[in-house]
Amino acid sequence: MTSVSRDTQAGGCCAPRFSVSIPSHPLDPLSIEEIPLAANLIRQNAASDRLKFNCITLHEPAKAEYTAFRSHTGRRPDRRAFSIVIQGKQSPRVSEVIVNLTSRQVESWKDLANVMPTLTLDDLDVTEQIARNDPRVIEICREIGITDMSKVYFDAWAIGIDERWGFERRLQQALPYYRSSRYDNQYAHPLDFSVVTDTEAQKILSVDVRRVNGERTAVSRDEHNYLPQFIGNSYRPERLKPIEITQPQGVSFRMNGNEIDWAGFKMHIGFNYREGLVLSDIRAHDPYGQRERMLFNRISVVEMVVPYGCPKPPHHKKHAFDVGEYGSGLMTNSLKLGCDCKGAIRYLDAVLPTATGEASIIENAVCIHEEDNGLLYKHTDFRDGNVISARDRKLVISQIITAANYEYAFYHTFTLDGTYKLEIKLTGMLNTYPLHPSEQAAPYGTEVARGIDAQNHQHIFSLRVDPEIDGPTNTVVQSDAVPSDEPVGSEANPYGNGFYAKKTPLRTAKEGATNYCHETGRTWDITNPNCLNPVSKKPVSYKILNNNCAPLLAKPDSIVYNRAAFARKSLWVLPYRDNELFPAGRYVCQSTGKEGHPHNDTILDWTNRDEGIENTDIVCYVQFGITHFPRTEDFPIMPAEPVSVMLRAANFWQKNPALWVPASDVVRDVFSRDAFEKRVDSAQRLENAKL
Amino acid sequence: MTSVSRDTQAGGCCAPRFSVSIPSHPLDPLSIEEIPLAANLIRQNAASDRLKFNCITLHEPAKAEYTAFRSHTGRRPDRRAFSIVIQGKQSPRVSEVIVNLTSRQVESWKDLANVMPTLTLDDLDVTEQIARNDPRVIEICREIGITDMSKVYFDAWAIGIDERWGFERRLQQALPYYRSSRYDNQYAHPLDFSVVTDTEAQKILSVDVRRVNGERTAVSRDEHNYLPQFIGNSYRPERLKPIEITQPQGVSFRMNGNEIDWAGFKMHIGFNYREGLVLSDIRAHDPYGQRERMLFNRISVVEMVVPYGCPKPPHHKKHAFDVGEYGSGLMTNSLKLGCDCKGAIRYLDAVLPTATGEASIIENAVCIHEEDNGLLYKHTDFRDGNVISARDRKLVISQIITAANYEYAFYHTFTLDGTYKLEIKLTGMLNTYPLHPSEQAAPYGTEVARGIDAQNHQHIFSLRVDPEIDGPTNTVVQSDAVPSDEPVGSEANPYGNGFYAKKTPLRTAKEGATNYCHETGRTWDITNPNCLNPVSKKPVSYKILNNNCAPLLAKPDSIVYNRAAFARKSLWVLPYRDNELFPAGRYVCQSTGKEGHPHNDTILDWTNRDEGIENTDIVCYVQFGITHFPRTEDFPIMPAEPVSVMLRAANFWQKNPALWVPASDVVRDVFSRDAFEKRVDSAQRLENAKL
Repeated sequence: MTSVSRDTQAGGCCAPRFSVSIPSHPLDPLSIEEIPLAANLIRQNAASDRLKFNCITLHEPAKAEYTAFRSHTGRRPDRRAFSIVIQGKQSPRVSEVIVNLTSRQVESWKDLANVMPTLTLDDLDVTEQIARNDPRVIEICREIGITDMSKVYFDAWAIGIDERWGFERRLQQALPYYRSSRYDNQYAHPLDFSVVTDTEAQKILSVDVRRVNGERTAVSRDEHNYLPQFIGNSYRPERLKPIEITQPQGVSFRMNGNEIDWAGFKMHIGFNYREGLVLSDIRAHDPYGQRERMLFNRISVVEMVVPYGCPKPPHHKKHAFDVGEYGSGLMTNSLKLGCDCKGAIRYLDAVLPTATGEASIIENAVCIHEEDNGLLYKHTDFRDGNVISARDRKLVISQIITAANYEYAFYHTFTLDGTYKLEIKLTGMLNTYPLHPSEQAAPYGTEVARGIDAQNHQHIFSLRVDPEIDGPTNTVVQSDAVPSDEPVGSEANPYGNGFYAKKTPLRTAKEGATNYCHETGRTWDITNPNCLNPVSKKPVSYKILNNNCAPLLAKPDSIVYNRAAFARKSLWVLPYRDNELFPAGRYVCQSTGKEGHPHNDTILDWTNRDEGIENTDIVCYVQFGITHFPRTEDFPIMPAEPVSVMLRAANFWQKNPALWVPASDVVRDVFSRDAFEKRVDSAQRLENAKL
Repeated sequence: MTSVSRDTQAGGCCAPRFSVSIPSHPLDPLSIEEIPLAANLIRQNAASDRLKFNCITLHEPAKAEYTAFRSHTGRRPDRRAFSIVIQGKQSPRVSEVIVNLTSRQVESWKDLANVMPTLTLDDLDVTEQIARNDPRVIEICREIGITDMSKVYFDAWAIGIDERWGFERRLQQALPYYRSSRYDNQYAHPLDFSVVTDTEAQKILSVDVRRVNGERTAVSRDEHNYLPQFIGNSYRPERLKPIEITQPQGVSFRMNGNEIDWAGFKMHIGFNYREGLVLSDIRAHDPYGQRERMLFNRISVVEMVVPYGCPKPPHHKKHAFDVGEYGSGLMTNSLKLGCDCKGAIRYLDAVLPTATGEASIIENAVCIHEEDNGLLYKHTDFRDGNVISARDRKLVISQIITAANYEYAFYHTFTLDGTYKLEIKLTGMLNTYPLHPSEQAAPYGTEVARGIDAQNHQHIFSLRVDPEIDGPTNTVVQSDAVPSDEPVGSEANPYGNGFYAKKTPLRTAKEGATNYCHETGRTWDITNPNCLNPVSKKPVSYKILNNNCAPLLAKPDSIVYNRAAFARKSLWVLPYRDNELFPAGRYVCQSTGKEGHPHNDTILDWTNRDEGIENTDIVCYVQFGITHFPRTEDFPIMPAEPVSVMLRAANFWQKNPALWVPASDVVRDVFSRDAFEKRVDSAQRLENAKL
């Protein structure tokens, strides 16, 4: 993403303008030169020449090294690449390699056991081809009257766990659909079987056919399309007049490479194959000390899980970890002005590796733009009629991914009051399954079209926040709104109205594993206990606001409960460790979630260490999401459903940090006593005029 | 609001264009002709000529009468006014009058006991004048060094309950502040006493001085201002470049009087002195049956309460009911383009009565506009690179009120997926109180500036939804997301991943009084059990999504717990009755909340009847809001904090109701296998170009 950037202005139609630069910031993603360089260095050190690059990505500098550089007390960190390579076909061997690109040396090469890395687009591609040509698949399609195999499509999915095989094979499952014409909506025609493939050996391991009372389920021939070529004649363009959003003087942010400066906020925008967007070094200008203050060291979405709630096989194997199993970076859309975003946009391209160690570019992978955000503040003095108001502004840094059927749009937003908000919009297509005439969808799904079952599911995201509230040593304090402890009528609470925020510092990792509580409107303050706000005399803090955190509904000891342990809690707080990023493990594919894995530790292992998290360098994993009971309205394509989490300043600034924002026109005398009299007069004038 | 309307287009500066019309719809607010007509008819029937009009407002037709008219089976309802009049000074007598404006007759005149109606702006105005001139007040101001009484200001508040007086007097409390110059922020200089006034007798009943260890608290002389004349030199206009939002072809909605037609939605926009905005007859075009379907009969915010959490007197008396005690309509701001809203705006004026029975106009009381709302839906087919997306649109009908220090902006919004959302933005000024040097603000408040305490408080709103989901007979079904009842390993739940929505119909009013549950992500489906969705075979429904519902923190038996009983539950469901609107009573000022009041029934009385609410005409009261622990960032003026509640279609339409929205440009081949190869090529070309 460093390498290529492009400006686009609403309404303008300037030709794409590329500018190629060498990474200038230690957190810049690997460039188009660095990826093949790393690949070559790795090849030179490999035992085999049958090497598949699962990833080649920036190996971020250790925090101590980076912060020394940032504070001008240490040298510029060397550029390093981290790569996972797979060798061998039948029993793939997985190795982790760290390459120093500055010194052009392989610094470490570690062979691992019992792990399976992320499925790349290349990996997923294999499944459809081999499934479509498999004689068993052809036969069971024929059984339900399908003879043209070019109309059968297979969505390749991570498999979760299939007890029939273990780590000796790299597995996928494939969910089949039928298309009656080229652009037909396949999710209207799900088929009643599933396929398990070995992607390295490129073979079908099993074709699992579901029979209900011994019968196959016919494929639905009803069409439910949404593309313009099918439904364009029912469009009603006359109903919606255009809304034009422009910035005639250009955007309010400035970029220097991947660093952005906007309205007092500064940060670095990174990108990698797995997390997609990574925001680092987030800091804000404090107008009351004329200084820059650190807020967050690093923010990214490090995991998510989508467990399906239908207990019948094979649906128990559907619980995609879209970050860990597929990679949010790999699945990134190339964005387009007017479709994905409106207004004056700056796009950034992403640079990703291929399986053969080359660089590839996703144009317009990241969108950066501003939006008007309504009222920032307003007050009317009812006496003198003085009205003051100012308008808020949003900086939005966004990315959209396609995970087979589903789409996730990630909007990292900052507003002028100092708030960070991650909003995710969920859209795309429901995963569907055919209903046999003897079946009904309820209670584990909804019949969204005749004979089409869309099953209950959840989306639980994990936002990793590495805070640095006014410095590296922070404490999370749980805050519960509770009534006064004193009874009604007591001296301390005579009228019974007393209530307060009960504050509980989280002291160890086990205490830091905690859940939201609605009854107390629980929030969590990320505080710096060493910095008191000079006004409130409370530690400066940012508050985690997270009431959109659907609890994991799978039962303890279910497969997904074990594999997605991170989703059991609304919040985990842990001490910071370099390279500890992924709460479901670095290797999520086929993972069991069992604690104590030598090469695949998860958030349970980190929590079991039960180290101190008070007044030290900490990391927060914030889980949020929704439970989705499909509706007919979600078919054939889902209206976007938003879900969000916020980090909001709480006694961080001495006062409203947005007082520098010029007020909108100040209006006088619209609400005063005099104005009231005038309103009566004008009503009377109008009445008289009518007589 | 019927009487006067005005168009304004962004960027344009057309002169105001008034058009005067006679109410043409039975739900139109009283016009500038009807208010004085009603007043005259009332005067002719009054015993005394010392009559004060507390309100003169539309007496809405009975539902049966109105729906008969609407369905062309009954005649047009007569126009009627409802008025509350106050006679006498020492012991004010309150009467309710209904006037038939069509037949020009007073139809009913009822004298009430033990009730106190809403405080009008006239009522509130009295307090500051008499307090400022009272010798006791002058003396206690002098004690803390204040001699210029023109610099002392009094915010008049409803009093809640003060045990020293009852219904024999119409009471207010006044909270005093000091201003060091004309436009100085008074909330930076709160004073340490409060005043109780009798507004009818126009006298001070008590001056309550707080002494801490026998000492007065000095007034803070620190200034904390926010108006441009004080802080304009620290504005940084260069940081934010303009964002222009225009609709060159005009807006997408059409209005006929107070009826609006937008993107398939139709409704009537009403307004009155108490609720402010009232949306009625909300219906939607169903593209799949080419018919109009009823959604909601009437939606409005019927109450709110703001209990403060500091147990020390006099703060227990601060729990404003801004709708019932002050009137959202009466406190409405006159709005301005570019300050309150951006884009192409249609404003509506409001017509309100004065104490002497005249009509007065608030210009631009209601703002109607559209906004781009980001992605409506998107899907990329990863095989063929087909991308489809469409953009969502919002219709926003809004109103902003000033309640002394606080501002509330109400945004009633509709989006293309059929969703109704009420978003409220809270802004304005914190209520403040001086800290004595021996005191600290914690735990019941925050020191937001040196010596200035801003106390914990809540804002709990009551949204009244009179649903008519495909007809008048509806049932609310509680929906809880729960794991399967079967254990892991059982035949019905072998892998433990099963979960479903447990549905519990609410059958009686007592069952209908229910709370949100986070653990089950509780929602409530307003269903029509008589209309099954032909696809899902489930009753058609709209779902109440309300997880922003801060529980009332005042203890049982506290004053506010009794007076604001409505705030004890997230949801109440009751059978519909004409004129049953206000859950804290029609007369909230000085109310005790005791059950069984002959003229002031509350939601407790309605619930105690425990009538059936299944498959009948029902009304839902949805409580939502926030608990506010003030932050230094909220001073001297608060950044807007949003809170919202939603009603979302759930198996109401047969499929996505927004497929008529034209897709944005369809993009091909950006995500396909071919495109991926191209990305590699383009990276290589770039690299070659650099060599």
